[in-house]
Amino acid sequence: MSLIHLSTSENIATVVLSRPKVNAINESLVEELGECFQKLAIDPDVKAVILTGGGSFFSFGLDIPELLNYSKDSFTKFLIKFTDLLKYIFLFPKPVVGSLNGHAVAGGCMLALSCDYRLMVSEKAKISLNELTFGSTVFVSGVEMLKMSVGARKAELMLYDGAMYSGEEAKQLGIVDELVFREDLHDASQKIAQGFAKKEGRAFESIKMLLRKHVVEEINKKDKDSILEFVDIWYSESTWRNLEKIKIRD
Amino acid sequence: MSLIHLSTSENIATVVLSRPKVNAINESLVEELGECFQKLAIDPDVKAVILTGGGSFFSFGLDIPELLNYSKDSFTKFLIKFTDLLKYIFLFPKPVVGSLNGHAVAGGCMLALSCDYRLMVSEKAKISLNELTFGSTVFVSGVEMLKMSVGARKAELMLYDGAMYSGEEAKQLGIVDELVFREDLHDASQKIAQGFAKKEGRAFESIKMLLRKHVVEEINKKDKDSILEFVDIWYSESTWRNLEKIKIRD
Amino acid sequence: MSLIHLSTSENIATVVLSRPKVNAINESLVEELGECFQKLAIDPDVKAVILTGGGSFFSFGLDIPELLNYSKDSFTKFLIKFTDLLKYIFLFPKPVVGSLNGHAVAGGCMLALSCDYRLMVSEKAKISLNELTFGSTVFVSGVEMLKMSVGARKAELMLYDGAMYSGEEAKQLGIVDELVFREDLHDASQKIAQGFAKKEGRAFESIKMLLRKHVVEEINKKDKDSILEFVDIWYSESTWRNLEKIKIRD
Repeated sequence: MSLIHLSTSENIATVVLSRPKVNAINESLVEELGECFQKLAIDPDVKAVILTGGGSFFSFGLDIPELLNYSKDSFTKFLIKFTDLLKYIFLFPKPVVGSLNGHAVAGGCMLALSCDYRLMVSEKAKISLNELTFGSTVFVSGVEMLKMSVGARKAELMLYDGAMYSGEEAKQLGIVDELVFREDLHDASQKIAQGFAKKEGRAFESIKMLLRKHVVEEINKKDKDSILEFVDIWYSESTWRNLEKIKIRD
Repeated sequence: MSLIHLSTSENIATVVLSRPKVNAINESLVEELGECFQKLAIDPDVKAVILTGGGSFFSFGLDIPELLNYSKDSFTKFLIKFTDLLKYIFLFPKPVVGSLNGHAVAGGCMLALSCDYRLMVSEKAKISLNELTFGSTVFVSGVEMLKMSVGARKAELMLYDGAMYSGEEAKQLGIVDELVFREDLHDASQKIAQGFAKKEGRAFESIKMLLRKHVVEEINKKDKDSILEFVDIWYSESTWRNLEKIKIRD
Repeated sequence: MSLIHLSTSENIATVVLSRPKVNAINESLVEELGECFQKLAIDPDVKAVILTGGGSFFSFGLDIPELLNYSKDSFTKFLIKFTDLLKYIFLFPKPVVGSLNGHAVAGGCMLALSCDYRLMVSEKAKISLNELTFGSTVFVSGVEMLKMSVGARKAELMLYDGAMYSGEEAKQLGIVDELVFREDLHDASQKIAQGFAKKEGRAFESIKMLLRKHVVEEINKKDKDSILEFVDIWYSESTWRNLEKIKIRD
């Protein structure tokens, strides 16, 4: 694997997004993450997973400049893979701790929302579902995961506003659970993961499914239509013009 | 139209309830509002709507003294029209800003809840779903819209208590989003509406439907039974006696 | 009845769990509570119910030492009876006020969650859904009632953490509605119950069903599977070892 880095110690697997500089999400990253989590699911030595980013970003979201080169059909298939990954992590049978080392934006925020717990550095990092600000809609999977964290009304406000929230604001909204200084993020994430790892795995999984399975059942009713509408809006003239302006710093 | 006043400027339509003195809701007002919103939906110059009240009330709710003169059948038809209007505004394809210039009570509160954002004057105005205090039940549409704003538990507490909440309390509960001084209400409402109007309309509508369509789908499963039960309780002896005591100041 | 104590005055029935010292829940207690509530449902003199505990515990939850002697089949039947009781109180046609005089843990917390309003003594009492800490899962009924009170995200955090929350924390989380000093609990509970009792009973019941019936409909879709999984985990080797260590002080 070349776009993620995996290490395991004391029953905790740490998955680091490693696609400099902003961990932008493309098809290869989605595939590598999917394969990695599938292995972790059946690895008896792994009791909990930490998902974090290398560098100063957790993930800036979809790699829009690259995705604009995909055909409409390839783009649609990419979105299905990406949302399947979100749902897979959301229902992952072991605890997943999101360790937000930096900005988590749009698709990067959705990846964070699929975890069971979120820590975020208290400094400059921002978290945002800013799709509407560049004329894009979102997927039903992201919406339902957001609603689970912050409730329906705050989900509306966040999606309509599209603001870049500071750690303090994110904690207040309930989209992250814990704020820590950058230098404490590793230890604090390990501590949370160790706490999860000590629980009986089967009871944990059972409770997680009681809480989350019906969310994915609801998502699945609308998932395909939602992705098709997403693609349709993405390729509309006015939205496309906005997308073409987006640059990713390397 | 005689019971509402409509004006449009800079892509913002302002709909003013104009049925002095308390903007009590009767069949004519519901019909005029429905026709007005249907026109606004297809008017390409309108990018957002502000819904407010003339005078010192947003709306005191259903015009109970008038409705007591309806036959049971006419009253039932009126309720279907009113709840259809609530659902229509709740799913209106463009942003709707509720600009609460004064009391928003019972049916008037439900009208406010159908909007995408609520500003409220910080002075004497109260907001309340006080149906239970006079022995009436509510409709499933109002319940579901309330739950979307404040969550299930606060919805219970508000409906059981039936209290008249001040702006501060309403903000705390999450039933309104922003408190402003009376003299600032117009400008603050315009500012929010302009913010919404700048978004790509299609992406906005798509996100709104992802957030709200399933709510109306749930409402529709129970809507008719809920209205029939409402009517049944409305015409029960003890509730009717309470209703007959209600006066509306003119 | 020997495990509960019932008294009625001024249209308020008070049901006191009376199984010293911790009001641990066994089959007899569940049956007596069920019979008692069924009588109260049809007693025209009863307008509201207070559910409280004798001694210094509300209820410490299931009587695990006793239940470990049940056969797997008897234990499963007991769980069905217990969750049926939770659902019955949750949809009880009259208001039920939970008056938490002391610890409300696991099954005892679920019993509290089935009420319409919860007061809790502000002193040493703790409230907790601590099942995961001893390797047990929970039932879908408890999960859905918890979600109704605190929302999906806080429900996750509480169930994963399994912490013993103080009154202050419980109030903050929204799992209890009001904190009172021990010496004020009786009067404060009476006051809340009297407030409920004054409402029109039919309108109250109608609103309660609008808010809660769909929750039980959702529970019923998964109830049986959830109980079977609960039993399966309960009898797993590692969980059973934890259960055998649990003592109940007499």
